[in-house]
Amino acid sequence: MSYQLLEQRFQQLHHLQHLQAICGWDQATMMPDGGNQARGAALAELALLHHQKLTSVEVADWLNTAENEELSDAQKANLHEMRRRWQNAALLPDDLVQARALAGSRCEHAWRGQRKNNDWKGFEPNLKVVVDLTREAAQIRAEALELSPYDSLIDLYEPGMTSNQLLRIFNDLKTWLPQIIRQAGERQSQYSPVKPEGPFPAGRQKSLGLHAMKMLGFDFNHGRLDISTHPFCGGVPEDVRITTRYNENDFMSSLMGVIHETGHARYEQGLPVAWRGQPVGEARSMGIHESQSLFFEMQLARHPAFLHRMAPLIKQHFGDQPALEADNLIQLYSRIEPGFIRVDADELTYPAHIILRFEIEQALIEGKIQVHDLPEVWNTKMQQYLGLSTKGNDAMGCMQDIHWTDGSFGYFPSYTLGAIYAAQFAGAIERDIGNIGDLIASDNGLSLIFNWLKNNVWEKASLLSTDELICQATGEPLNTQWFRHYLEQRYTML
Amino acid sequence: MSYQLLEQRFQQLHHLQHLQAICGWDQATMMPDGGNQARGAALAELALLHHQKLTSVEVADWLNTAENEELSDAQKANLHEMRRRWQNAALLPDDLVQARALAGSRCEHAWRGQRKNNDWKGFEPNLKVVVDLTREAAQIRAEALELSPYDSLIDLYEPGMTSNQLLRIFNDLKTWLPQIIRQAGERQSQYSPVKPEGPFPAGRQKSLGLHAMKMLGFDFNHGRLDISTHPFCGGVPEDVRITTRYNENDFMSSLMGVIHETGHARYEQGLPVAWRGQPVGEARSMGIHESQSLFFEMQLARHPAFLHRMAPLIKQHFGDQPALEADNLIQLYSRIEPGFIRVDADELTYPAHIILRFEIEQALIEGKIQVHDLPEVWNTKMQQYLGLSTKGNDAMGCMQDIHWTDGSFGYFPSYTLGAIYAAQFAGAIERDIGNIGDLIASDNGLSLIFNWLKNNVWEKASLLSTDELICQATGEPLNTQWFRHYLEQRYTML
Ligand SMILES: [Zn+2]
Ligand SMILES: [Zn+2]
Repeated sequence: MSYQLLEQRFQQLHHLQHLQAICGWDQATMMPDGGNQARGAALAELALLHHQKLTSVEVADWLNTAENEELSDAQKANLHEMRRRWQNAALLPDDLVQARALAGSRCEHAWRGQRKNNDWKGFEPNLKVVVDLTREAAQIRAEALELSPYDSLIDLYEPGMTSNQLLRIFNDLKTWLPQIIRQAGERQSQYSPVKPEGPFPAGRQKSLGLHAMKMLGFDFNHGRLDISTHPFCGGVPEDVRITTRYNENDFMSSLMGVIHETGHARYEQGLPVAWRGQPVGEARSMGIHESQSLFFEMQLARHPAFLHRMAPLIKQHFGDQPALEADNLIQLYSRIEPGFIRVDADELTYPAHIILRFEIEQALIEGKIQVHDLPEVWNTKMQQYLGLSTKGNDAMGCMQDIHWTDGSFGYFPSYTLGAIYAAQFAGAIERDIGNIGDLIASDNGLSLIFNWLKNNVWEKASLLSTDELICQATGEPLNTQWFRHYLEQRYTML
Repeated sequence: MSYQLLEQRFQQLHHLQHLQAICGWDQATMMPDGGNQARGAALAELALLHHQKLTSVEVADWLNTAENEELSDAQKANLHEMRRRWQNAALLPDDLVQARALAGSRCEHAWRGQRKNNDWKGFEPNLKVVVDLTREAAQIRAEALELSPYDSLIDLYEPGMTSNQLLRIFNDLKTWLPQIIRQAGERQSQYSPVKPEGPFPAGRQKSLGLHAMKMLGFDFNHGRLDISTHPFCGGVPEDVRITTRYNENDFMSSLMGVIHETGHARYEQGLPVAWRGQPVGEARSMGIHESQSLFFEMQLARHPAFLHRMAPLIKQHFGDQPALEADNLIQLYSRIEPGFIRVDADELTYPAHIILRFEIEQALIEGKIQVHDLPEVWNTKMQQYLGLSTKGNDAMGCMQDIHWTDGSFGYFPSYTLGAIYAAQFAGAIERDIGNIGDLIASDNGLSLIFNWLKNNVWEKASLLSTDELICQATGEPLNTQWFRHYLEQRYTML
C-alpha cells in the first residue's frame, strides 16, 4: 500500500530531522566557534538529503495513490499533512530555493553587523534581494494553493489562517486594547515596586529555573536545560532541549524565559507517542506552539497565585530582600511600558508590534510598498500605535528582527495568535475545571490543568485542523473575547 | 574525471560522519536516558545512508576508472584509501552486516548485566553467535584481501599489519619485559609514596584538566572537554570532543585520562587542512592514534620533568599536602602492580594483557579454540603471564572487555603497537631536537616537540603507509628497542 510506503519515508525523514535538531542545538549551545564552518556544511548536506528524500518522484506517486486507499481518519489526516510537507518542499524550483537560502544567509549575516551600526543603507540592498525572491516564491505558492501571495506564506506557519481573518482579529484588538493600556498605566502609577538587587549568580538562577520546570511538569528524562545566546526550544519530542541565558543583575527575565520555553517543551513532550515520526504527530502550528509557551508564562507563571508560590523559592535561592516579596514580584511582573523592541515588549503592547509588522509585510509582499519605504512606514505606524518615533533609528525600528533577513515573512502573526489561543484555552479550563488562581494555589490543580492541555492540545498534535482543535477544546471558534477578558482581569482589576 | 566525483562523494560521506560524531558525542555526554531509543534509530538511519552512499554501484565504477587517470601522489594515496573504505563496506553481504550488528548489539547489551553477575553461562551463547558471524566475515574478507582470516580483521584497524609481525614483536617483548617488571618491582619496594587525600571537587579537577590541556596545546577554538561514563575522544577534526569522568577521591586518574585524550585530540586537530573531508586526510590507524595519546600520557605527562611543572599547579587547585610534592607524584605515577583488569593496568604489565588477547583471538578466529574454551584458556595465560588466576571469576577475566561483545576482534594489538610507536617517536625526537626531559623543562621545548609530531605524524595523516610513516619519521622500521630503552629508563634507573 502506498500509504505504508509514505509512513516509512516520513519515518526516515523524522530520523534526519532528529540529527538536524541535535546538531543544531549543539551549534547554539556547545560548539566552539571554530567548528562553525564544518557544522554548516554538514547541516547543509543533511538539508539537501532531506529535501531529496521528501521530493523524490515516488513520493508524488504514493501521495496520489494513497488518496484512493482505505484509511482511518487519523491516517487521512496524516496523508493530508504529508501532502502539505511535500508541497511546501516541492512547489518551488530548486534554483529558487537555493537562491533564497543564499540571499537569506547573506542578508542575515551582514545584518548582525549592520543593525549594530544602524546601517540601513547597507542593509537595504540585501533585504531587497530577499524580498524580491520571497515575492517570487509567494507568487508560485499562491497559484498552486489558490491563496493570495501573502496568505500562501502565512500558511507555512499557521495552516488555514488567512490575512482576512487576521485583519478582522487585529482590527478588533485595535478597538479595545488602547483603553486597557491606558487603564493599566493609570493603575500602575499608584504602585512603585522595588527592583531586586543582584548579583544573582548564574548557578543559583539555573537551580531556580530547574525548580520551576519541575513544578511545571517538565520531563527531565526526555529533555534538558542549557545556555544559548538566543533562548529557544529545540531537540525532538523524545529529548527536548530548552535554553536560556543568565544576566547576573536580573534573574526575572531568565526565570520567565525558562518557563516560556517549558511551555513549548511540554507541548513537544506531550505529543502523541502513537504518531511519533509521522507528520500528523507533530505540533499543529506556530501559533498553537506559542499558545502553550504563553499559557505557561502568562496564564500560569505571572499569575499572582503562582508568584505567591514562587516567592519563597526565589528567596531560598537569592536570600531575603523586600523586593522578593510576592506582592512586589506581582507588580514587577505585570508592569507595562511602550517600547521600541518587540522582544522586550510587555503583554499589552506586544500586539501593536505584531499588527504593525503584519500590515507592513502584507503590503510589502503584495507590492504595495517597497523595501525602500520601510523606515518611513515603520516610523509612521510606531508613532500611531505606540507614540514612539524611529526616525533615523532603524536599528530600533525596521532592522530589529531577524525574521525578514532570511525571508520568514508571514511568521509574526503567530505570536499574537498564540496569546489569543492561550487566553481562550484558559477560559475553557476555568469553565471545565475551575478558577486558574485556585487551581494554582491547590495541591494538584496544576496537574489538572496539564491534563486538560494534554487531552485537548498536546495529544491532538495535527490530527485536527487548528479551527477544529480550538472548537473542540473550547466549544467555540477562535475569538478575542477571552483575551480581552483576561487582559482586563490581569491589568486593570487587581 | 571519476577521481573528482569520488572526492565529492567522500566529502558528502564526511558530512554524514560529522553528524554521526556530534550526535554520538551528545548521546554519551548530554542526552537524558529517555532519548536513547530515538537517538539509536536516528543514528541507524544515518549509518544506513552512509553505507548506501559508500557502496552504490557508481562508486565501484569511479574507483576503477580513476585508476587510469592522471593523479598526483597524494591523490593516488587518497584513491587507495577510498578503495579501502569502499572494500570494507562493500565486501560483506548486507544480510551478514545486519546479522552482525544485531548479534553485536544484543550481546553487548546483555553483557552489561552479565559481567556484573559473573554470568559466563548467560554470556557464552550470545558471544558464540558473534564469533560465528565474525569468522564468516573474516573468511570473506580473507579471500578478497588475500590475507589470513585473522589478519583480514587486524587490517581494519591497523592496515598493513600482520599477525606474523605481531607475533615477532610480542615474542620479543616476552623475552625482556618480565626482567624489567621484576627490577621495577624491586626498585619501588624501596619507596612508599603517600596517597593524596581528597576530596578533590570535580570543578577543581576540571579546571586542572583544562590547564593541562592548555599546556599541551589543545585548541579550544576547535574542541572542548566534557564528562562521560567511558572517556573518549570524539567529534571531528574541526571540533574535537574529549571526555573524562571525575572521582572526587582521586584526581590522578582523571588528570592522566584528560592528557591521554588530549594526545588523541591534537592528532585530530593537527590533521592536514588541505585534505579535510577526504580519506587520505584521516588518521593513519588505531595504533598511530594510540601512539599519540600514549606519547602525551607516558612520554610527556608522566615524565618527572612534567610532573615537576605540574606539581605547583596541582597544589594551587587542591591546597598543599605532602602527597602533592613532585617527587611523591612521580613515584605514584610510575607504580606498577600486576592486576586482572586491562584498563587499570600500568604501562609495564599492559602488554601482557594485550599479548594474551592477541593469542586468544587469533586462535578463536582461526577455529583452533572455541568460545567454550575461553575461561580456561584465559586463566591459563593469566597465570603464566601475570601470576593471577581467573578461575571462576570470568567477570575479571574473559568477560571484562567490551571489544569482543560486538565482534571487534583484531583491535587489541593497536594498544601495544601504540606504546611501541610512541617510544620510537620519542627516540627520534631526542635524536632530532634533544632530551625530552630538558625540552619539557624549558620554555618552548614542548612547542618543538609538538611541531615535530605535527610535521612527522599529524600532517602525514594517511598520505603514507604506516611503515613509510614510521621510517620517514624515525629513520628506521618499527622495532621494539626504543620501547625497551624507554621502559628501562623510566622504571629501573630513576
Ligand atoms: Zn515562544
Ligand atoms: Zn587512547
